[in-house]
Amino acid sequence: MSLITELASQAHSAARTLAVLDTERKNQVLLAMSAALRANVDSILTANEQDLNHARAAGLSDAMIDRLTLTPERVEAMAQGIDTIVKLDDPVGKRRELCVRPNGIRVSKLSVPLGVVCMIYEARPNVTADAGALCFKSGNAVILRGGKEALASSLAIADVLQQVLQLFKLPKALITVVPDPDRALMLELLQQRDYIDLVIPRGGEGLINFVSDNSKIPVIQHFKGVCHLYVDKAADVEKALNLLLNGKTQRTGVCNALEGLLVHKDIADTWLPIAAQALEDSGVRINADRRSAGYFNGANILEDQEFGQEYLRLEIAVKIVDSLDDAMEHIAQFGSHHTEVICSEDIQAAARFQHEVDASVVMANASSRFSDGGELGLGAEIGIATTKLHAYGPMGLESLTTEKYLVDGHGQIRE
Amino acid sequence: MSLITELASQAHSAARTLAVLDTERKNQVLLAMSAALRANVDSILTANEQDLNHARAAGLSDAMIDRLTLTPERVEAMAQGIDTIVKLDDPVGKRRELCVRPNGIRVSKLSVPLGVVCMIYEARPNVTADAGALCFKSGNAVILRGGKEALASSLAIADVLQQVLQLFKLPKALITVVPDPDRALMLELLQQRDYIDLVIPRGGEGLINFVSDNSKIPVIQHFKGVCHLYVDKAADVEKALNLLLNGKTQRTGVCNALEGLLVHKDIADTWLPIAAQALEDSGVRINADRRSAGYFNGANILEDQEFGQEYLRLEIAVKIVDSLDDAMEHIAQFGSHHTEVICSEDIQAAARFQHEVDASVVMANASSRFSDGGELGLGAEIGIATTKLHAYGPMGLESLTTEKYLVDGHGQIRE
Repeated sequence: MSLITELASQAHSAARTLAVLDTERKNQVLLAMSAALRANVDSILTANEQDLNHARAAGLSDAMIDRLTLTPERVEAMAQGIDTIVKLDDPVGKRRELCVRPNGIRVSKLSVPLGVVCMIYEARPNVTADAGALCFKSGNAVILRGGKEALASSLAIADVLQQVLQLFKLPKALITVVPDPDRALMLELLQQRDYIDLVIPRGGEGLINFVSDNSKIPVIQHFKGVCHLYVDKAADVEKALNLLLNGKTQRTGVCNALEGLLVHKDIADTWLPIAAQALEDSGVRINADRRSAGYFNGANILEDQEFGQEYLRLEIAVKIVDSLDDAMEHIAQFGSHHTEVICSEDIQAAARFQHEVDASVVMANASSRFSDGGELGLGAEIGIATTKLHAYGPMGLESLTTEKYLVDGHGQIRE
Repeated sequence: MSLITELASQAHSAARTLAVLDTERKNQVLLAMSAALRANVDSILTANEQDLNHARAAGLSDAMIDRLTLTPERVEAMAQGIDTIVKLDDPVGKRRELCVRPNGIRVSKLSVPLGVVCMIYEARPNVTADAGALCFKSGNAVILRGGKEALASSLAIADVLQQVLQLFKLPKALITVVPDPDRALMLELLQQRDYIDLVIPRGGEGLINFVSDNSKIPVIQHFKGVCHLYVDKAADVEKALNLLLNGKTQRTGVCNALEGLLVHKDIADTWLPIAAQALEDSGVRINADRRSAGYFNGANILEDQEFGQEYLRLEIAVKIVDSLDDAMEHIAQFGSHHTEVICSEDIQAAARFQHEVDASVVMANASSRFSDGGELGLGAEIGIATTKLHAYGPMGLESLTTEKYLVDGHGQIRE
């Protein structure tokens, strides 16, 4: 048996033990994990120093090195993240009654863990603790395959968590770090359909495409975030301005930042001059359709087919639309099913937009930047899905479970 | 654009129209569909006669020809199936409140259709009407790719349904039959990730493996049904006997038939002689472990690694176990995550079995034969999943939807 098959099959067996652990016990283990991270901060930082030395020697970018760097505060944040997960509701074991059939059998559904979750990610060592704790609380074993840049740090964090597992007589294989970042081994991991139930890649579009194209296991896909703000004719001008600036400028390199602005023609004369000034003051580069270009200084003209770009920097696409329907049509064509926002005081317009726009998160009068697990109250987020199966949007503990049917009878047979 | 890409992209566009149709309108369309099937029974039977002539000329088996054959009664059953779907609750548009965050944004989830569902099936013409109606009610466009044996019948049924769509000014592309059963075209269909959201194959293990291995779109997998009855020491002997005979003999070629019998050692002397006699009377061939073989006449001895077969005929594997835990261990090793049954009057034993056994349907004191959508009260079944993602077990209307997040604010931005 190869190393990868062995790791996967051990995780699969370990998952059975965890699936039946009660909430109180799981929380005790999680609290011991956060305490152990705090107690072992020195060994974690020592391992991280190794990763940083390699990263500096390899000439990695400052942004990459920043993502990789652990400090006592960042380890404390990881521990606090686990403490937060302790407080979340256990998603496993929830019974939902469906019906009692005419023959008297009682049919219900019971939420159960998925089994084994495989995380594939790049250079963020904190994913090891976050995903480890989220999967543990939801009753799943996890296999963590991080980038080689953070390997020593990930192994050190996993080692601390595994020591806690052993203290509680639980199998170490509940939290497994793949010790070799070789791509061939990742490919092998993606074939383990018998042992792994779900793959969650986190990283750039290249990584997600590679995993999707090569996996025999279902993959949570999260491609890109081309999010729009539609400023309706019935918009409150101040709210619209706040939502625009917050969505575009508060943080630009993230998937829930705004990339497109659609403005109803009836409000253009009132609102666009103010918005244009504010965007200019914030240093946002403007790409505009011919109709809206005149409101801006030095806008780049966008042709119809050029919309839909994910800029991830201080740059935005602007278009004037004739109606709510035209706005929704534009979003259907150029959106990425991530997050879409309407700003309107017209309750009916807002409701139509929310019901009809096909995106995982549809907001009325709130910033696109709220589109993540923490902000939406999930407590923590294991990933985000922009494909519609199983989960759609930010995924918390509930998305790490499914439901099985229970049937209770008193000897009924089928005629 | 190739034929297949064109069909898929038309279905994708059509799905947007359907996603926003209200329940009353959908039910009107469905009632018109069942009426139109009844009114066009002659043209459907004429097309079916073509399929049957080809099938006889090709020397297809009697069983295959029976599955293919339509009669006035079978067309009426299809129409009644649609009438039943009209009465089912609309799964789309259900709002579930999640929370109001400290900043005042209100977070909820809204159930939405998946988009485009692709059914891949063999020679059953009724799937065309059943899947067409289930997908329509759940707001999904459907692409039907049946086997070549039933092509003329499927096209005739789809033609009737499409005429109704046009009468209601809805796009024909909501229900599409692939007009050419060429395998290369099926392969092309399985690549249409941009337009199709879910593939449901129905048929033998070969078809399901072919689809799973070649699809770029998520596939609902339903491999096999190796279902067990565990007769606990606290079982009611008569119930146990009824569940055994019903599960094994009522219909043998189906995935929810029993293939394994596990008997607690403490009840073996009392119950196994009666069970052995009843199985012999029903002509069931016995494969038994060494410990139970003595209770049967002429049992074939099974070694440990030979358990787990799907017989699909009057044949069963029998084993004596020392405890509930041993029974669950055997099922974990040899079960297929389909349906598992405990017979016991001990409520705690039944509850442990239901919670701990990892199968899509876990029954206490009821026949495994109840494991299908109709019997479990789903109204109708589009498929059954033995993998755990998105859906697990029989899939009804609810499984053809997912949920998106809605956020309602009054101008909140992220700090």
